Amino acid sequence: FMFQRRLYTSYHKLIKVNYFSTNNNFIRLTRNLSIMSSQQNHKLCMIPGPVEFHEDVLTSMSTKATSHVSPSFIPVFGESIELLRKVFVTEQGQPIVVSGSGTLGWDMVASNLIEPGEDALVLNSGYFGDSFAACLKVYGAKVTEVKSEIGDRPTLQEISDALSTKSFKLITITHVDTSTGVLSDVKAISELVKKQSPNTLIIVDGVCSVGSEEIRVDEWNLDVVLTASQKALGVPPGLSILIVSERAIQTFKDRKSPIPSYYASWAHWLPIMNAYESRKGMYFATPPVQLIYALNTSLKQITSTPLETRFEQHKKVSDQIKSVVESLGLQFVPKSREVAANGMTAVYYPEGIQPADLLQKVASHNVVIAGGLHRAIATKYFRIGHMGISVTEPERKHIDNTITALTTSLKELGYSGN
Amino acid sequence: FMFQRRLYTSYHKLIKVNYFSTNNNFIRLTRNLSIMSSQQNHKLCMIPGPVEFHEDVLTSMSTKATSHVSPSFIPVFGESIELLRKVFVTEQGQPIVVSGSGTLGWDMVASNLIEPGEDALVLNSGYFGDSFAACLKVYGAKVTEVKSEIGDRPTLQEISDALSTKSFKLITITHVDTSTGVLSDVKAISELVKKQSPNTLIIVDGVCSVGSEEIRVDEWNLDVVLTASQKALGVPPGLSILIVSERAIQTFKDRKSPIPSYYASWAHWLPIMNAYESRKGMYFATPPVQLIYALNTSLKQITSTPLETRFEQHKKVSDQIKSVVESLGLQFVPKSREVAANGMTAVYYPEGIQPADLLQKVASHNVVIAGGLHRAIATKYFRIGHMGISVTEPERKHIDNTITALTTSLKELGYSGN
Repeated sequence: FMFQRRLYTSYHKLIKVNYFSTNNNFIRLTRNLSIMSSQQNHKLCMIPGPVEFHEDVLTSMSTKATSHVSPSFIPVFGESIELLRKVFVTEQGQPIVVSGSGTLGWDMVASNLIEPGEDALVLNSGYFGDSFAACLKVYGAKVTEVKSEIGDRPTLQEISDALSTKSFKLITITHVDTSTGVLSDVKAISELVKKQSPNTLIIVDGVCSVGSEEIRVDEWNLDVVLTASQKALGVPPGLSILIVSERAIQTFKDRKSPIPSYYASWAHWLPIMNAYESRKGMYFATPPVQLIYALNTSLKQITSTPLETRFEQHKKVSDQIKSVVESLGLQFVPKSREVAANGMTAVYYPEGIQPADLLQKVASHNVVIAGGLHRAIATKYFRIGHMGISVTEPERKHIDNTITALTTSLKELGYSGN
Repeated sequence: FMFQRRLYTSYHKLIKVNYFSTNNNFIRLTRNLSIMSSQQNHKLCMIPGPVEFHEDVLTSMSTKATSHVSPSFIPVFGESIELLRKVFVTEQGQPIVVSGSGTLGWDMVASNLIEPGEDALVLNSGYFGDSFAACLKVYGAKVTEVKSEIGDRPTLQEISDALSTKSFKLITITHVDTSTGVLSDVKAISELVKKQSPNTLIIVDGVCSVGSEEIRVDEWNLDVVLTASQKALGVPPGLSILIVSERAIQTFKDRKSPIPSYYASWAHWLPIMNAYESRKGMYFATPPVQLIYALNTSLKQITSTPLETRFEQHKKVSDQIKSVVESLGLQFVPKSREVAANGMTAVYYPEGIQPADLLQKVASHNVVIAGGLHRAIATKYFRIGHMGISVTEPERKHIDNTITALTTSLKELGYSGN
């Protein structure tokens, strides 16, 4: 018993010394290599979320029981709210952090901003556009969709045409549709909406983009950006996260009909966020304490480097993977590099390769990639996630290992390229 | 680096040997004492949720990144659904596990079972009755409340009188109102409803009771029991958990109006639960993988002992704490022992003792207890949680330490008893 304790204590002491003695890159690298060994026998999770998690984030997940209104937790939640503003590049936007999946984010938008009978314009570049539209309808919206072919996104001309037909309360953009890997040009769309329909609220589904794609809430005049914890924010699933503009809050306050949700109502969440940010506890629903500790750890890591560097890293790694896919003679789901996301890659199986075979073969090389999700082509393509520490900490060799696993697997299955 | 790894590996090897070599109590005790040392400097979280978490549950919280549809996760989720049936003592009831706080459970009931204009009877024994009523109203219910004085619960006569006024679609019972520590007699109420109004669905808010109070879904004819992870189920906050009877599901299927929620709709969750239980992955929203690993670990621990033993343990510890409180001359919020919960104790401050002073003093003895929550008396009482491993593993001495911290603190603040 004493022996065990001594071992345990010594281990942690060594780690701490490494961590706090200096923060130069060599030490970080050494430390990562050493801690990373604890994840050695684990199959890499290279799907478009959940992504691989940093060891410090996982350690935060096992934070000992802590009261949600205790003096140790309140500042952690408060600081996380502040750090989210940095990640979303906003000064006035109000972060809201709720226990729930990313899917809850649609209810958090629709139930607070839509009043029955109001018009919503949904830009559809895949499965998640369909779902956002379905959710808006539940809350009484009359939905107009601009839908593109699989692998494409609505053009600015199509969006402009749609905007000219009605006065839309809001427009939704799926920044990256996880089902197709298609990237939308949020900045250009926002500029168009501002010019053509300035009263329309601009809503971005950033579940698969926040932390891996450039996004600037204030500069791009976005009203809501919703996301989840388990993608490029690098935190296990269980947090629905939103940034809400002052204009969106005002719209919410001005609504005439009652809010048709209890759990998702901003009337409950805004005071909670204000309380924690001013370092006071307040109760509506018990916050997921451990997930918020993990969020805090990850946000500190993310904001310790300029966001520009982060986006460049994601772009560079994405280019690397896409070049490999291209050199293998495989075909992307997105119709061009221009409309393809930087945090994931969606690729059609080559002829003759069965879906289950490839996923299992890749898994046998200790890398997990994902199958298809878009209903119309679900069995025809696979998806690779490349977000977060797998991208920003190349010493982990996640990307190299993924490329090797993919190319080896294809070879083993008899695929010899184009 | 090699040295660290050796230390780390040795530590885990020792633990594993202890754990798997035998399961007799002595070894469990030794193992617990040894692992518990890692929580030594941590203030005990003795509030009515979140409760103290077992080390193995915390370790599960830091499970490495795992796909929500991977062959390693699917059986864990599937088994957790099966284990929940055991904890709720039901064969036909359908467990639903959703990423969210306990508060989401009310929306999960109201949005699926209430159609606009239908009558709901809410038995109110504190803050959480008010909130459940508020949530039901959001979804169009006409709510009748049977409200008792603070510290009391509606009598069977009052409930019977209310039932005779209308045909209620559903009745809600807060099993334990966390704000007052008042326990409802769910079994007796259910018998009354079955006799007097058999078509009324029986809904139990078991957030602060499941795992600490006797509850038998099938035998007591309950239609929905909703709970959360962070109380007697012993898992960090972030899971909304429900059991839904066949009758409730049929009522849901027979509803004529559309379901007024997207995220909370059973139309999405029932197929997901069925899929995972039959060991298949299916996607609606990314499940909180790490929390579900933790749930699985805790449910295995809970079901390894007969539930009767568990309930007796909670009753015994509750009696012990309540006797100490009584011997100190303090007054309970619940008006009698009969209406008092077994997993928590709500106590009025003695005259002359300031709320903040007592909570801080107790915290200085490394025990965290909670202040008041019921709006009308919030600054006048405190609450102690005694659920889960703090009760079932007496070798941890959580209860002893809590009693010592409380009595010592009162003495130090000059309170000398009655």
